[in-house]
Amino acid sequence: MTMISTVAPDKQTITAFFTDLQDRICEALEAADGGGRFHEDRWERTEGGGGRTRIFQQGNVIEKGGVLFSAVHGPASESVMKQMKEEGQTAEFYATGVSIVLHPRSPMVPIIHMNVRYFELSTGDCWFGGGIDLTPHYVVEDDARWFHRYLKDACDRHDSTYYDTYKTWADDYFFVRHRNETRGIGGIFFDYLRPSEAHSKEALFQFVQEVGNSFAPIYTHFMRQNQALPYGEREKQWQLLRRGRYVEFNLVWDRGTKFGLETNGRTESILMSMPPQADWTYNYQPEPGSQEAHTLNLLKKGVDWLGK
Amino acid sequence: MTMISTVAPDKQTITAFFTDLQDRICEALEAADGGGRFHEDRWERTEGGGGRTRIFQQGNVIEKGGVLFSAVHGPASESVMKQMKEEGQTAEFYATGVSIVLHPRSPMVPIIHMNVRYFELSTGDCWFGGGIDLTPHYVVEDDARWFHRYLKDACDRHDSTYYDTYKTWADDYFFVRHRNETRGIGGIFFDYLRPSEAHSKEALFQFVQEVGNSFAPIYTHFMRQNQALPYGEREKQWQLLRRGRYVEFNLVWDRGTKFGLETNGRTESILMSMPPQADWTYNYQPEPGSQEAHTLNLLKKGVDWLGK
Repeated sequence: MTMISTVAPDKQTITAFFTDLQDRICEALEAADGGGRFHEDRWERTEGGGGRTRIFQQGNVIEKGGVLFSAVHGPASESVMKQMKEEGQTAEFYATGVSIVLHPRSPMVPIIHMNVRYFELSTGDCWFGGGIDLTPHYVVEDDARWFHRYLKDACDRHDSTYYDTYKTWADDYFFVRHRNETRGIGGIFFDYLRPSEAHSKEALFQFVQEVGNSFAPIYTHFMRQNQALPYGEREKQWQLLRRGRYVEFNLVWDRGTKFGLETNGRTESILMSMPPQADWTYNYQPEPGSQEAHTLNLLKKGVDWLGK
Repeated sequence: MTMISTVAPDKQTITAFFTDLQDRICEALEAADGGGRFHEDRWERTEGGGGRTRIFQQGNVIEKGGVLFSAVHGPASESVMKQMKEEGQTAEFYATGVSIVLHPRSPMVPIIHMNVRYFELSTGDCWFGGGIDLTPHYVVEDDARWFHRYLKDACDRHDSTYYDTYKTWADDYFFVRHRNETRGIGGIFFDYLRPSEAHSKEALFQFVQEVGNSFAPIYTHFMRQNQALPYGEREKQWQLLRRGRYVEFNLVWDRGTKFGLETNGRTESILMSMPPQADWTYNYQPEPGSQEAHTLNLLKKGVDWLGK
């Protein structure tokens, strides 16, 4: 799917890639799941644009999740203009992207999140953002290394500095501050990637395509590899507690979620990231030496997964 | 427990009332539950003060909840001084209070929240805050009327304007904006009650004592009255969805929770408000005419429960 062209990709080209990416990812997930089907809600935004929210419920492997596409536009808010240091100016914005969160049935399969997005202002300013990060209920070093290796290889095909920079960014972003733990084993996270002398718009778009295209191979690998691993009541209970932490991160710290809920976004699309079920136990402490304690010990910033 | 005195109550007197209130409420809840017992964690705050966090888990009626007392002090933060319009000044603060959230086992018993608090600055400024609000999984008009009547009578013994003002404040505060629904049937909420010509510090303290003392009779009434009501899988499922909304309100909109988590408060105490378990279902719509739809129709601001 790498696109070669000599002109900078316009918003139509980028949008077309994202709609196609949503289609391809949904197909790949349905095939790997072998059970559930995506249910689609198309919605329109009063101020301009809309989206296709696709929700998966009651699959064999995936218990609940969403693969969302949206492309919205309208007058840029004052806060956006301020953030872009163009205070006092007025402009139109255009924003499009694909967002995914999948909660598997089995505690042995990780939760995954992916986002790729493009934003432009009628002032001429434009940038890409996105990333993929993994939240295993139980951290397994071999799986973590495989995941980070896949991302590093994808990054290295575009810029040898990308992986380190965006891996650190993910560690910092997906951090549950009030628990002093990372949400999972991180991955890559990037934002405000603007065309520059070093990276043309076409080059940035190729990188974002690579990230988007990495999602299905990565997650279907874990679906296939881990779905048959045995587990019992104890692992299920731990999964529910970890999902509680996922809820805490998304509702307290995730800027995208907060922004969406505070600016009258489509609530049901934003909160597709919520797990089907989550538990809270006061002051739960895993037994020393247990797999649960091992996982907690690894939910730290700055772990060198490739060296594990 | 109404205290009569001719001098303004000092922080020691107020703190002593709150510790005693915590004791009395815990005793009343244990007696009404007939099963579970409170587990106490005493904690200290590095910067000054501490608390007694009492957690109830696995009771007969109460599935999970907490009755928390704290009294903390130290240098007032810049943001507090700014809020108090004393920017640039430095001062010491003292804050004490009791906070309660109880999640019952049965969907027929309501979730309840209560808070009473006192804050003072070494500049001489001081104020009370607090309130009680009820979140029934199923709204029953008779119960709602009884609850609001109890609160109105308590308010009326102090000021005939309190109930209307603080009922409206509760409607506005306990509002899940991204769902366009109130968290429950409200109650009363008040803050920044400062001594004035109309209300001496002693009079405000008497009102806060009345609110605190109302908690046990109100909630044990619902525990006793509703615990034996029959329910099935459908009601349990609805309870889990409503608990999801409770989580959303507390993590996204509740200023106390956000402030605590962002300022390095004791996470396990703050998040005692989380339910034992919560569910999320994408775009759940209750059947028209069902009890669930009836409840949703009543989760609005401005309902005159006394006239129902």
